[in-house]
Amino acid sequence: MSAHIRGGLSGLDYFKKMIAGQAEPPPMLALLGIRLVEAEEGRVVFAATIEDKHYNGLGVAHGGFAATMLDSSLGCCINTLMPPGRRFTTLELKVNLTRPLTKDVGLVRCEAKVIHVGGRVATSEGTIVDSKGKLYAHGTTTMIVVEERRGRLEP
Amino acid sequence: MSAHIRGGLSGLDYFKKMIAGQAEPPPMLALLGIRLVEAEEGRVVFAATIEDKHYNGLGVAHGGFAATMLDSSLGCCINTLMPPGRRFTTLELKVNLTRPLTKDVGLVRCEAKVIHVGGRVATSEGTIVDSKGKLYAHGTTTMIVVEERRGRLEP
Amino acid sequence: MSAHIRGGLSGLDYFKKMIAGQAEPPPMLALLGIRLVEAEEGRVVFAATIEDKHYNGLGVAHGGFAATMLDSSLGCCINTLMPPGRRFTTLELKVNLTRPLTKDVGLVRCEAKVIHVGGRVATSEGTIVDSKGKLYAHGTTTMIVVEERRGRLEP
Amino acid sequence: MSAHIRGGLSGLDYFKKMIAGQAEPPPMLALLGIRLVEAEEGRVVFAATIEDKHYNGLGVAHGGFAATMLDSSLGCCINTLMPPGRRFTTLELKVNLTRPLTKDVGLVRCEAKVIHVGGRVATSEGTIVDSKGKLYAHGTTTMIVVEERRGRLEP
Repeated sequence: MSAHIRGGLSGLDYFKKMIAGQAEPPPMLALLGIRLVEAEEGRVVFAATIEDKHYNGLGVAHGGFAATMLDSSLGCCINTLMPPGRRFTTLELKVNLTRPLTKDVGLVRCEAKVIHVGGRVATSEGTIVDSKGKLYAHGTTTMIVVEERRGRLEP
Repeated sequence: MSAHIRGGLSGLDYFKKMIAGQAEPPPMLALLGIRLVEAEEGRVVFAATIEDKHYNGLGVAHGGFAATMLDSSLGCCINTLMPPGRRFTTLELKVNLTRPLTKDVGLVRCEAKVIHVGGRVATSEGTIVDSKGKLYAHGTTTMIVVEERRGRLEP
Repeated sequence: MSAHIRGGLSGLDYFKKMIAGQAEPPPMLALLGIRLVEAEEGRVVFAATIEDKHYNGLGVAHGGFAATMLDSSLGCCINTLMPPGRRFTTLELKVNLTRPLTKDVGLVRCEAKVIHVGGRVATSEGTIVDSKGKLYAHGTTTMIVVEERRGRLEP
Repeated sequence: MSAHIRGGLSGLDYFKKMIAGQAEPPPMLALLGIRLVEAEEGRVVFAATIEDKHYNGLGVAHGGFAATMLDSSLGCCINTLMPPGRRFTTLELKVNLTRPLTKDVGLVRCEAKVIHVGGRVATSEGTIVDSKGKLYAHGTTTMIVVEERRGRLEP
């Protein structure tokens, strides 16, 4: 998602390429089996199937799984609105876990939408639901802009 | 960490077994290379080395990596105080990212300490620092008790 | 909102009485000029006009003003769903301030809606907007149930 | 606390003047009876006595009271480190309520300390305790810098 990796693309164009299989998914998401499936202006959806590897030893997915899925979604929905050379990065992330995520739940979708985009700061909200729309987790984020200057991104 | 998996042990005894290599680490932590290294009453430390697999495509570790490390630490420090058959599980997690975590940072430690333990709810706080004590992330959690009744844990 | 003060009413019936002027508003809300104006199942709206007394010395309303308005709204929208003798109380509150609230903004509305209601824990989300729908703050809460037993509310 | 109101003073010098009674407290804090009592580099303490006016109708202080006390403390401890013409303002505030605040509790102190101060963003943590050190609430904040340019503060 860096200017380098986005290759001069806007956030939305880059995400569309990723959905089309023409851009590599980030390593952490590949590791966890979380994939981008929808992207439009101000909104994205990631999907994943709960597996043993996500478990925390209590027979449910680790809270970090939901946090990872939400962090990706919350950030990308804001970056769908960003032109080439401009992106937002996470300052803070807040996650609520409302039901245990288990293998029985199977496929889950994490949808996130922009709440506020200002000149320096943006916020967004997202949910993790199963195929019937049942809620398992929700969260919000606060992000700050990073702009490309002199050929590289500067915080 | 369930009563079943803890095998009738208190939280602290179970964590000591895990540090000694006599109990399996949770799958999600094994996947991410995050390991428990210290546990005492009300305090734990997890450690990990930042690798390519943690990256988010921006040349830094995914926010979900810090969130996973913090969620484990914040929960386990509370569970060090729990007797057999009683444990706390995450209601919500709040993470601040203060500096980018990169492979150059290398080994990081996530230390968490209990803030409050009540009859039903507990809170804790934690930090992620490098070998020089430089801060990369911090967070807090709110957890709720789950007690064993009739042979199984009931939420 | 206690069983005593609600006088055996459900949350929603009690809030309707307050809107009708037949129940006293809480002292803190009276002090800040924040009033309940709408209540239905799972949703409430509070309103207030920004005044000098809300200021923090920087020529804008104190962050505590938005936090107070959101805490009331986030809690009451959950309690609209509660029968007599049962209510939820705040475990934690998360507030984002997206624009400065000044006297020029004038009248603001804080609308909150339930996200999740479980047996022990509930969550909700809310926003503070002006008369044109412009967003000034938003937040979420995690609440825990308190039930009446033996004639009084027990945590 | 604006450059104007701080009158060209650093944050710490301004807070010391306020403690000495030589600068007016912000209206919102005067309204709620919350007063600054200690300030040093990276740390402040506010104090208040719980009164009827803080109540929420449930026989306890409104969550907004703790939020207001924490927001002031969390912000001011960061601003103790700021030179004239530079200050930080709240992006987001997270508050945990761990015990009910009632008139029986009497005098409470809210102490806050800096966690991280960067070029654009800062974070801090604080607690509300009674005269015996018992914990009633705790919280964290994320703040962003506002700098004075051309004679006025610009966000």
